Amino acid sequence: MRFTATLSGVLSFLEALKRVLVGRPEISGRFRPAPMRRRFALPALSTNALSSLAYAPDEILVTLSLAGVSAIRLGPWVGLGVMAVLMVLVLCYRLAVRAYPTGKGDYQIASENLGPRAGVVVGAALLVDLTLTVAVSMSAAAHYVAAAIPALAGREGWIAAIGVALLVVANLRGSGRSNVARALPTVLFVGVLGLLLAIGAVLALTGHLGQAPSADFAVAPAAGHEEGATGFVGFLLVLRAFSTGSAALTGVESPISGVTQLAKPQARTAGWVLLWLGVIATVLTLGTLFLAREAGVKLADSPGSQLSVDGHPVTGYTQAPVLAQLTQAVLGAGWPVWVLGIVTVIMLLSAGMVGFSSFPRLAYHLASDGYLPRQLRTQGDRLGYSNGILVLGIAALVMVLATGAHLGVLVQLYVVGVFVSFALSQLGMVRHFTLRLRSSAQRRVRGALRRKRALSAIGALLSALVLVVVLVTRVTHGAWIAVAAVVLLSLGMLSIRRHYDQVDAELAIDDITSVTALPSRVHAIVLVSTLRKPLLRALAFARGARPQRLEAVMVDVDRDKTQRTVSAWQRWGIPVPLTVLAAPYRELSGPLLEHIRQARADRPRDLVVVYIPEYVVGRWWEQLVHNQTGLRLRARLHYEPGVVVASVPWQLASTKAPHPATPEPPA
Amino acid sequence: MRFTATLSGVLSFLEALKRVLVGRPEISGRFRPAPMRRRFALPALSTNALSSLAYAPDEILVTLSLAGVSAIRLGPWVGLGVMAVLMVLVLCYRLAVRAYPTGKGDYQIASENLGPRAGVVVGAALLVDLTLTVAVSMSAAAHYVAAAIPALAGREGWIAAIGVALLVVANLRGSGRSNVARALPTVLFVGVLGLLLAIGAVLALTGHLGQAPSADFAVAPAAGHEEGATGFVGFLLVLRAFSTGSAALTGVESPISGVTQLAKPQARTAGWVLLWLGVIATVLTLGTLFLAREAGVKLADSPGSQLSVDGHPVTGYTQAPVLAQLTQAVLGAGWPVWVLGIVTVIMLLSAGMVGFSSFPRLAYHLASDGYLPRQLRTQGDRLGYSNGILVLGIAALVMVLATGAHLGVLVQLYVVGVFVSFALSQLGMVRHFTLRLRSSAQRRVRGALRRKRALSAIGALLSALVLVVVLVTRVTHGAWIAVAAVVLLSLGMLSIRRHYDQVDAELAIDDITSVTALPSRVHAIVLVSTLRKPLLRALAFARGARPQRLEAVMVDVDRDKTQRTVSAWQRWGIPVPLTVLAAPYRELSGPLLEHIRQARADRPRDLVVVYIPEYVVGRWWEQLVHNQTGLRLRARLHYEPGVVVASVPWQLASTKAPHPATPEPPA
Repeated sequence: MRFTATLSGVLSFLEALKRVLVGRPEISGRFRPAPMRRRFALPALSTNALSSLAYAPDEILVTLSLAGVSAIRLGPWVGLGVMAVLMVLVLCYRLAVRAYPTGKGDYQIASENLGPRAGVVVGAALLVDLTLTVAVSMSAAAHYVAAAIPALAGREGWIAAIGVALLVVANLRGSGRSNVARALPTVLFVGVLGLLLAIGAVLALTGHLGQAPSADFAVAPAAGHEEGATGFVGFLLVLRAFSTGSAALTGVESPISGVTQLAKPQARTAGWVLLWLGVIATVLTLGTLFLAREAGVKLADSPGSQLSVDGHPVTGYTQAPVLAQLTQAVLGAGWPVWVLGIVTVIMLLSAGMVGFSSFPRLAYHLASDGYLPRQLRTQGDRLGYSNGILVLGIAALVMVLATGAHLGVLVQLYVVGVFVSFALSQLGMVRHFTLRLRSSAQRRVRGALRRKRALSAIGALLSALVLVVVLVTRVTHGAWIAVAAVVLLSLGMLSIRRHYDQVDAELAIDDITSVTALPSRVHAIVLVSTLRKPLLRALAFARGARPQRLEAVMVDVDRDKTQRTVSAWQRWGIPVPLTVLAAPYRELSGPLLEHIRQARADRPRDLVVVYIPEYVVGRWWEQLVHNQTGLRLRARLHYEPGVVVASVPWQLASTKAPHPATPEPPA
Repeated sequence: MRFTATLSGVLSFLEALKRVLVGRPEISGRFRPAPMRRRFALPALSTNALSSLAYAPDEILVTLSLAGVSAIRLGPWVGLGVMAVLMVLVLCYRLAVRAYPTGKGDYQIASENLGPRAGVVVGAALLVDLTLTVAVSMSAAAHYVAAAIPALAGREGWIAAIGVALLVVANLRGSGRSNVARALPTVLFVGVLGLLLAIGAVLALTGHLGQAPSADFAVAPAAGHEEGATGFVGFLLVLRAFSTGSAALTGVESPISGVTQLAKPQARTAGWVLLWLGVIATVLTLGTLFLAREAGVKLADSPGSQLSVDGHPVTGYTQAPVLAQLTQAVLGAGWPVWVLGIVTVIMLLSAGMVGFSSFPRLAYHLASDGYLPRQLRTQGDRLGYSNGILVLGIAALVMVLATGAHLGVLVQLYVVGVFVSFALSQLGMVRHFTLRLRSSAQRRVRGALRRKRALSAIGALLSALVLVVVLVTRVTHGAWIAVAAVVLLSLGMLSIRRHYDQVDAELAIDDITSVTALPSRVHAIVLVSTLRKPLLRALAFARGARPQRLEAVMVDVDRDKTQRTVSAWQRWGIPVPLTVLAAPYRELSGPLLEHIRQARADRPRDLVVVYIPEYVVGRWWEQLVHNQTGLRLRARLHYEPGVVVASVPWQLASTKAPHPATPEPPA
């Protein structure tokens, strides 16, 4: 039996696999998308915000269902509250983009106005938030898929995981970066949903609207909510529904962070996009919730125990999403539901793509500022920030698999990050306007600045309020995980920055002569393990480098072997003195380190170069059957000052086996 | 927040933990046990064989119970069959030890007489077998513990795992190597069990023997065995019980492989030990089985469904091992059962220790012959072969956890390895005597050799027969796993040997001048990433080595950084030429390798030394936030012939943090 898989074979295979998945590498600076005009910018930059229509109404109704049917009928009012917040945020962000016409994201606004620590918190919140954009979008998509194909019900976690994997591959390939690819899903989704709502409105007004499949169900309140949506408990429940529905507000900041991609005048385009984004989101969300009430859509947190018909529990019923139930009520079951489902899943995939383009870009900025590892700045073969894409992919995978794509849990986490960054960036805007007020004397300007500041303050306050609502109503339902993630991430980012700063200070060149002093002499040590060809090559290379002092050192770990080597050394007449070090504890590095330290103590200005002969094997398992002494020794020697470790590799024949065509270069 | 755990801190902690668990290192050659005289040798070398009394009778009765009560009464006869085989093997091994008075194990006997391939198969079988010695002993011990402490019932797998872990630590410490420690558990166990059986025999003969707790139970036959132990099905079942009971034969070869530890005359001592081992095992096994029948001990494969009293199924009954039931019948419940249990568990731990001393020793021999990785030859701090101990520990852990310490399954695996090695080593002895017959002319000697050969042939045949019985009756019950393990291990060992042979042939020095030719000139390349102190040190070291040609090479991965570096290079007036390589695909190793290959093509006799500045960090997480470029590049460069990779480490301040007392050596 012969294992033909070689290390280089495995590497070539992985390389080939990467080529198939990722595509051929692209030359730097090759990809430059055209600036987006309004008609592309509006759909492309509102994908994230509008995609929440696929799940936010559902989450509102599910939360309300805990208090029974009467509470479900409050859905549109909760939606109205969410949309009011949305419009305030839209106005605030319009101010922000006019104040920073070159485009600043929440992270930059906060760090510029409130200091780097606030910026780091916003950065952490946004990273968590964008991870959840992907996790939530893919989970929602998984629920649509499972609702359409009942055989897949209960496997939502895995479907969502496949979705995340697809997004990772697509983004490593650099797919979907064209303006058309970014705009089309939103156009389709808004078109289909708008048409559906319009027809539905006409039918409702004329009294011809059909019934949702769940219209006849009674919904039993959960324990503790028998009173319905009344009293303090009912009030808290409505607040909870409101906080859940706030998921619809995520992504409203997209037009700001995407300003640089817009056609000029960029700030004006962004402002226009923001306004229409707000209008469309409001119309569609409220339309969906009102029509759902008209059609009698009922959702339940646990359909099996809460739903009943004529006093009998409902069995064999799979709860379909609100949009699917609405479609059935307006256009009937069958192909319309499929069309809506497909369009919605495409929209959710597109929202996932937004997460995958924003997260790595934010990580790049944070890494450039020294808050995240430098590796996140690396551009991959297809010009995407591959490490950022992979980190996001893994984090989102963990989330969907850990929660089993449970939207109720994920949405709670989602909302925390969003409102932390909203609140802090609006606070930053308040401070920004305050500073400008100080330097401005003109009365008319001062009045305008005061009004802008007031609006930003309202935005900040409102966001903080929603955050408090979320924390109060949902902190035990999982929101603490998001809080902990933001806190830990912020602390981690601050200590990474501190480390980089320390290293910078330590390594910065202040006085070139202090470091460039040449070592007076070179003391070369060749490590002897077995007297074979690789050792002779290492000796030849060490001699070729003509050090002032050269010795071969053998550590006497195995008495017999040492004696064999010493006698062979004399027999072959090797012209390098051989030093044998005693090793009473059968351990290599101790005696060697002691020898080196002694040598350095004797001549502190000498440079010690340790030559280690190393075998390079071709097959992965061959690595296992050779002692890893060289590797471990190198790691130990790295902690010794004034020691250079030179590996002299010997390529075993097996490294060349898979490339018979490559002629071996002369040695 | 500051992470104080540093890499060296972690290492020191692990080192300290190792010291606590393993103890201080011992100087080579320190441990030399006294040669064992007969009275120590008999108990010390029969531990493994006699410990099977703790489970082999149980396994025989459990297997027979499948055919109901009448079959259980066949127990002593099955035991008699097993003991007959034992006596034949004892006689065979007495021949073997007289033929090889210096002591050869089954592995050496087989490889010497039947060729290295047969030796490898025996080696593989013995490795599997010794792993199972540990797994079976610890599983049996776990069952005794669980029978004594009902709260632990059902957790046998974890108890056995703890036992294995204890054995690993004890062996890494080098505990229990004294002759007394090895002999005492067997003396205790045989003494207690012998006393019990003697009293039991007297009581039985006088008609005063008590009843076992399971005496009144009826045992329902399993499906397919309603006819009892009659017909072909019954015959197969008895064979199965016989093959299971053959577990009692493992360890009979211990006196042979332990010959070197014996007092002189070694071969005679070993022969004496073998004979008495056989006698004691026979008396105790048959005594146990006969007395168990007299006391009415009933065991069942699935007690819950098979056992009944007066037609009612037995509930709330925990099946105790045969020895425990016997003790209760002879001496009554209470402290006698506890004494027996404790003595038995100690005996089983001692048998596990035998596995842990034999396996690493065998692995050492196999590694010395090139069939296993060389690492298995390393002696640890306490002179044990630590790697072998760890490998065995992990393998045994996997087995007890995977089977949940299920003895029925483990014993089947056990028997396969034992009889493969018995059969092949006896076949080796047949060939040995045949060869001696050829060279011997004396008539009397030839007659004796013929008789010895006949006996060995009977031993080989009998072992082969038992192996066939095991395979026929149990191959689908898990024995195939052992067969597969032996086959895969043998193939793996042969390919490791082939690899070592190839490497030896490739690396052997045939002509010293061909390899020692010195490179004509040295071309040093210093890799530039950031212009900071570590780079200056690398440049200084490279200049200090006075190469004929020296250049700094920067790969232009990031345009801005390259320009900054180039201008700083001029500003500081660094006296080394800087070459900038274009990297259109933002990748470091491609352009660098091309540059090196070009240089080597121009001057093939030059040696290229690549200096890589590396940061050495103190805290584990700091490693993550530095690009691992150096590491990956070194791996790539190792595949280039004629290139030496010199790492120039820069120890960051954090590497020194935990040792404020250590004065920094002069740089």
